[in-house]
Amino acid sequence: MSDKILIFGHRNPDTDTICSAIVKQILNEKSGNNDVKAVRLGNVNKETEYVLNYIGIEAPELIEEVSEGQEVIMVDHNEFDQSVGGIDNAKIIEVIDHHRISNFETAEPLYYTARPYGCTSTILYGEFKEKNINIDKKEATLMASAIISDTLLLKSPTTTEYDRKALTELADIAGININEYGLDMLKAGTDLDDFTEEELVNLDSKKFEKDGVKCVIAQVNTVSIDDVLKREKKLKEAMQNEINKNDLDVCILAITDILNSNSELIVLGERSDVIEKSHHLENDRVFLEGVVSRKKQLLPLVESNI
Amino acid sequence: MSDKILIFGHRNPDTDTICSAIVKQILNEKSGNNDVKAVRLGNVNKETEYVLNYIGIEAPELIEEVSEGQEVIMVDHNEFDQSVGGIDNAKIIEVIDHHRISNFETAEPLYYTARPYGCTSTILYGEFKEKNINIDKKEATLMASAIISDTLLLKSPTTTEYDRKALTELADIAGININEYGLDMLKAGTDLDDFTEEELVNLDSKKFEKDGVKCVIAQVNTVSIDDVLKREKKLKEAMQNEINKNDLDVCILAITDILNSNSELIVLGERSDVIEKSHHLENDRVFLEGVVSRKKQLLPLVESNI
Repeated sequence: MSDKILIFGHRNPDTDTICSAIVKQILNEKSGNNDVKAVRLGNVNKETEYVLNYIGIEAPELIEEVSEGQEVIMVDHNEFDQSVGGIDNAKIIEVIDHHRISNFETAEPLYYTARPYGCTSTILYGEFKEKNINIDKKEATLMASAIISDTLLLKSPTTTEYDRKALTELADIAGININEYGLDMLKAGTDLDDFTEEELVNLDSKKFEKDGVKCVIAQVNTVSIDDVLKREKKLKEAMQNEINKNDLDVCILAITDILNSNSELIVLGERSDVIEKSHHLENDRVFLEGVVSRKKQLLPLVESNI
Repeated sequence: MSDKILIFGHRNPDTDTICSAIVKQILNEKSGNNDVKAVRLGNVNKETEYVLNYIGIEAPELIEEVSEGQEVIMVDHNEFDQSVGGIDNAKIIEVIDHHRISNFETAEPLYYTARPYGCTSTILYGEFKEKNINIDKKEATLMASAIISDTLLLKSPTTTEYDRKALTELADIAGININEYGLDMLKAGTDLDDFTEEELVNLDSKKFEKDGVKCVIAQVNTVSIDDVLKREKKLKEAMQNEINKNDLDVCILAITDILNSNSELIVLGERSDVIEKSHHLENDRVFLEGVVSRKKQLLPLVESNI
């Protein structure tokens, strides 16, 4: 068991989870509570790596589980099934989060600060202000990066006035140009160069069947659809392999521009009419303005055309 | 459905629950959110009645349940089984509480402020300060009363430095002498005059059986054990009636001095040795210093002597 209070965000950590854990450690230390240590529950993604490299700090230590009675602070999550192994027997002394509350309970009273903001770091920013604690360049950059990431440069519908206000002041302290730095950071996170076409088609792929029609909708996020389309020929080969291997009726790859909130679809297979019935395909592709969500936008469209 | 956001504490409301609901309404109104209304889920007890009369305000409206989708703010509780009927289909937009979190969940992100303090009103006091909102005499008296009640004049082991600090400043604004006002208020809550001896023995009574021995431990809270003992003869008659009626082996009445954290026991029945084995009874009575909890102190003692 660590004799320090461990601070961590959710599994499959994103930039808010990693940055908020590090910032919470700094906030507690500046408040005179030094017995805290930020850790992480999974690999750092490329976007977060960009942030840590920019500042010049190491990623927090990786842990898999905690001992019974371990004191912990949870940031950016509360649901036990998104948390560290052993969380149900840990002593949760504080939670800072911006998600709904579910699958969470404690035996004792605790500190719990939830706000319906776009980002956990926006809540932490508020705590620095309330406690009148100075925000230095390092934590300003971490919090600004988290806000840019969670709100997609303030463009996500989850963005609140609190996120806007926090980001403006934090970027000032950090000395960053929000759009320049933000674009570079988000681009780093959508760097697909290291992945083969087959990996791209399987990175985030959802299979489902309706009325005997076997479908796959895969999705990759990018800041430049054109960049991804440079690999169109090989992507189509990889998609065709998936169709042959899994006996699919249709395979859809959504290349989603996370900055402009649009998607370009590549649609292959005998039942490509599940898209064609609504949107004319040209060269197996179509550009769908305003479409970013597989669950809320693409899936209902495909299902209505089966 | 109310078009205002309803604010309420737990069922069987105590002073913190009623006062915190009223104060939260005032806090929101002073912050510019007028669409809020404090309500209550049960009868106002005598202690709270004393507070409301002192200030000269009415108790909040009584409600039993809320419609689906009703917007609500929960204070001084979070567990659904302590809350209003229909809470699982309400839209919980905020919680302010000082208890453990359990049996609670939401579908959407929300405001949740939990602190491990002795009283919900201490958290509300902190929100006035953080938001730099002026505290007037009315809300100062409400919050001070809640803190006095929940911490038994700062003597309960649940009291924190935050409760002490808040009470000092609030009493100043309220213009009350903490000990004088607090004693009067607590005494009002332990006013047993309206109850018959039979009612007193049944007010808060727990029956249990171990190894065939039938026991009852009843408890009444007071600020003067001597006052209650003036009714000793009739109380013993009422206890003997309970023994005869329910075929009890032992009946114990704990008269608990909530200010000095002691209890006087009256012990009747053939198995009065469940106390006598550990503590000498004189005239069927014994004074136990430091004993206030039936669950954590009396029950284990009795069970160990059966």
